[in-house]
Amino acid sequence: FEYDAPSMKTPVPGPKSQVNTQHLNVGAINFFCNYEESRGNYLVDADGNRMLDLYTQISSVPIGYNHPALMKAVTNPNNLSAFVNRPALGILPPENFPEKLIETLLSVAPSGMTRLQTMACGSCSNENAFKSMFIWYRVTHTLSLACSYVCLFKQAPGCPDLSILSFMGGFHGRTLGCLATTHSKVIHKLDIPSLDWPIAPFPRLQYPLEEFARENSQEEARCLEEVEDLIVKWRQKGKPVAGVVVEPIQAEGGDNHASSDFFIKLRNIARKHGCAFHADEVQTGGGATGKFWAHEHWGTDDPADIVSFSKKMLSGGYYHTDELQPDKGYRIFNTWMGDPSKNLFLSEVLNIIRRENLLEEVTRSGKALLQGLYELQTQYPHLLSRARGQGTFCAIDARDDVTRDNLLLKTRDKGVLLGGCGERSIRFRPALVFKEHHAHQFLNIFNDVLAEY
Amino acid sequence: FEYDAPSMKTPVPGPKSQVNTQHLNVGAINFFCNYEESRGNYLVDADGNRMLDLYTQISSVPIGYNHPALMKAVTNPNNLSAFVNRPALGILPPENFPEKLIETLLSVAPSGMTRLQTMACGSCSNENAFKSMFIWYRVTHTLSLACSYVCLFKQAPGCPDLSILSFMGGFHGRTLGCLATTHSKVIHKLDIPSLDWPIAPFPRLQYPLEEFARENSQEEARCLEEVEDLIVKWRQKGKPVAGVVVEPIQAEGGDNHASSDFFIKLRNIARKHGCAFHADEVQTGGGATGKFWAHEHWGTDDPADIVSFSKKMLSGGYYHTDELQPDKGYRIFNTWMGDPSKNLFLSEVLNIIRRENLLEEVTRSGKALLQGLYELQTQYPHLLSRARGQGTFCAIDARDDVTRDNLLLKTRDKGVLLGGCGERSIRFRPALVFKEHHAHQFLNIFNDVLAEY
Ligand code: FES
Repeated sequence: FEYDAPSMKTPVPGPKSQVNTQHLNVGAINFFCNYEESRGNYLVDADGNRMLDLYTQISSVPIGYNHPALMKAVTNPNNLSAFVNRPALGILPPENFPEKLIETLLSVAPSGMTRLQTMACGSCSNENAFKSMFIWYRVTHTLSLACSYVCLFKQAPGCPDLSILSFMGGFHGRTLGCLATTHSKVIHKLDIPSLDWPIAPFPRLQYPLEEFARENSQEEARCLEEVEDLIVKWRQKGKPVAGVVVEPIQAEGGDNHASSDFFIKLRNIARKHGCAFHADEVQTGGGATGKFWAHEHWGTDDPADIVSFSKKMLSGGYYHTDELQPDKGYRIFNTWMGDPSKNLFLSEVLNIIRRENLLEEVTRSGKALLQGLYELQTQYPHLLSRARGQGTFCAIDARDDVTRDNLLLKTRDKGVLLGGCGERSIRFRPALVFKEHHAHQFLNIFNDVLAEY
Repeated sequence: FEYDAPSMKTPVPGPKSQVNTQHLNVGAINFFCNYEESRGNYLVDADGNRMLDLYTQISSVPIGYNHPALMKAVTNPNNLSAFVNRPALGILPPENFPEKLIETLLSVAPSGMTRLQTMACGSCSNENAFKSMFIWYRVTHTLSLACSYVCLFKQAPGCPDLSILSFMGGFHGRTLGCLATTHSKVIHKLDIPSLDWPIAPFPRLQYPLEEFARENSQEEARCLEEVEDLIVKWRQKGKPVAGVVVEPIQAEGGDNHASSDFFIKLRNIARKHGCAFHADEVQTGGGATGKFWAHEHWGTDDPADIVSFSKKMLSGGYYHTDELQPDKGYRIFNTWMGDPSKNLFLSEVLNIIRRENLLEEVTRSGKALLQGLYELQTQYPHLLSRARGQGTFCAIDARDDVTRDNLLLKTRDKGVLLGGCGERSIRFRPALVFKEHHAHQFLNIFNDVLAEY
C-alpha cells in the first residue's frame, strides 16, 4: 500500500510550490503538497518529491496518508449524511451520537474520567476546559454570586478575577485564553494583550537522566515549590488559581520531559490548594508515546480532573470527572460543538490501532528511533545532544538554532520531513504506522546529513 | 426532492429522544435528529416527526439538509483525498488550495478586501481577527517594541494593554477573547474572567421605523457619541482601542438593527481615532439578508477593514485589507487553519446560490415572511410586536420571555422549528432554499398557534 522509500526530484520547495498566493497569509508555508499521491508515512509534494514524514501535519495524522480504512469511511453510503449535514451538536445531536461516542471517544476515556465534552480543535478544547474549571471553582469555593448580571459589564463578581497557572515553555493554543497560558515562543504572544495569570518554571532536566538523578530531582522540587508559592501569592492578590494546566511532555516548547513523580506531586499540590488539574494532551494524546495517553506513563489511576485532546484525535474535546460538570446547559456551548464526521474517521483509527496493535508497534519503533539517536549523538557530540523520548514522541537537540534549521533543510532535501521545537530541538512526530524499518530509513539518511555537515 | 409539509407523530421531544446520555453535557439538547431522513427545509427527528426548519442548526445550514449537490461532492472520487487528509494549511497546503480559494471564498470577498485568512469556526475567526487588529495597531501606531521578550512573562510592552470596543447586546463567540466582547446573555459570561475593554450601547430602535424616524436617529447619535467618548477614555486609561467590532444585525442579542447611516458613521469614527473596524458577519453573512454580506446593505464600497464569517460558510475565516496583513508568518497560525473539505462543500453552495438565484429568492420569501409577521402583529397586538428583518433574517418580539418560550414550543409541536434570541424575540433563520410557499406554510401554522393561545 505505501511506498518503499523517499524519492527526490527537486530541492524542496520545488518550482511547482511557487504558486500564486497573493491573497493569502503565506509567511509560514513550507511547500505545496499532493495529498492524492501521498501514502502511509510518505508525503508527496507538488513536484513529485516523496518524503518520509516524521512531522505529520504538526503531529495530527494518526494512521498515515490515504489510509484505506478512512477512504472506505467516506465512500460508505451509511456515512453520507454525517458528512453532508453538520449538526449543532449541543442542541440537535444525531440519534446515534451518544452511542457512537461510547464506541469511540468514551472507549479510550482516561482513568477516572466519566464525562466527555466534544469540541472541534485544540484551542476550543482548552478554552472550554478552562471555562469548566472556572465554573467548577466558583461552585466549590462558594464565592459570592450576588449581582451576577454585573458580569455583562465585566466587573466582579459576575466575572471573577480567577486565574489558570501554567508553565514557562508550555503551549496550550493561541486564542486569547489559551495564549495567556502559552509561553513557548515570543512570536505567539507579541502585541497581543494577556491576562495576569501565574507562570511557574518547568523542570529543565539534564541528560543522560541516570547520571543526573540527584540534580534533576532537585530541579523538579524547586519547580514544585515555586508552583505552591505562586498559588498562594495569586490567592493573596485576589486572583485565585482555579486550575493548573500542564502538558505531560512540553511539545512546542522543546520536548521538555519531567518525571512521573513530578506530575503526581503537582497533581497533589493542585488538590491540596483546591485547584483543578488539567492535563493538556492535545499533542501527546492518541498513542505516539506508546500509551494511548501520555499521562498513563505516570502510573496513577487518578491522573487529573480534566484531559483535553485534539490533533490525532481528528476533532477536539476534553474528558473530565463528574465534579467538573457545569450545573447548567449552555454554559459550555457553541454552534457546532465538534464535528461528527471527524468522529467517523476516529472510529476507524481506533479500530486500526487495536487490530494492528499500533501502541506496541509505536513502542518498538520508538525504541529503535531513540536507540539510533543515542548512537548518533555519541558519534556527533559537537552537533547533537539530549536525545529523549517516549514511544516515537522523541526529540534531540542541535548545537544551536542555526544548526538545527540547517539540519532540518538538509534532511528534507534528502527526503525526510522533520519539525523543530523549542530553541534548538528537532522533534519526531511520525504517525502511529511508523515501523522499525522507517526508523532505520530515517537514521541512515540523517547519518548521511550529519556526516556531510 | 424535499417534503411537502410538516408531519407530526409525537410531541417533541418524543420517546426516542430519551437516549442514554449520562456521559455528555446534555443540558441544552432539544431533541435527537434523524439527519438521514431530513430533506431541504425539513428536519426529521428520531421519532419520525418532520418539521419545517426555520432555525437550521443555529443559522448554519446554507442550502438545506442532504442537498444532492453536497452528496455528490462526497461521492466524487476526486474529492476523496480532501476528506481523508486534513492538512496543516498554514505550512503544507494542497497544491490546488490557492486556486480553490479564488473560485470559492475569494469570489465573494467583500468590497475593498483583497486578503483572506481561513479558519475553522466563528470563535477562531474572531479571535484571530482581533489578533490581526492588535498586531496592525502596534505597527501603525509605532508603540515601543523594546524588550519584546517580556511578553512571555505577560507584562507590557510585549503584551500591550490594547482593547477591542464592542457593543451591549453583541455576540462574537465564547472563547475568552471573543467572550470579552460578547454581552448578550448572562449565562455566557458568568464566572469566567474577562478583560477590561470598553462596551458601548447599541441603538434600541422603535418600530415601526417610519413613525419613529426622529427618535431613532437621536438614539443612534447618542450611541455614536458614547463610542467616541469610550475610545478617548480608554486611550487615556492606557488601554487604547485597537479595533471596533460590531455585527451588522445583533443576532443572539435579539436581532437588533441599526441604520446604514449608523454603521457608516461608526466606521468613520473608528478611522478618525486610528482604530480598525471589524464587521462580524458570522451569523449575518452568506446570503440570508438577501445580499451575500449584510454590510452590503450599507451601500458603501469601503465597509470595513476586516470581515469575519463562519456558520453558513461551513468553515470560518476573515477577509481584510492589505494593511491588516501581519508582517510575519506564524503570527496568525494554528495547526489546521481551516478545513479544505468544508471548502469543497462551500464551492457547491456558491454554485447553487448563483445558479438558482438564491439571493433573489431570499429577498422574495423574506418579503412574504415579514409581510405575514406585520399582519400577525396587527392581528395579535397583545402577543406580538416589533416585526423586523432583512431578507429572511427576520424577528418578532413576544409579550415577554415566558410567552416567547411557550410560542416556540407550541409551534414546534405543530411542526415548525424556530429559535429565540435576546430577551423575548423569536428569530427566523431558514436556509437559503426557503421559498415563499414555506413562508406561507409557517405563517398559517403560527396563526393557528396564536389563535389558540
Ligand atoms: S476555536 Fe476550535 S475550531 Fe475554532
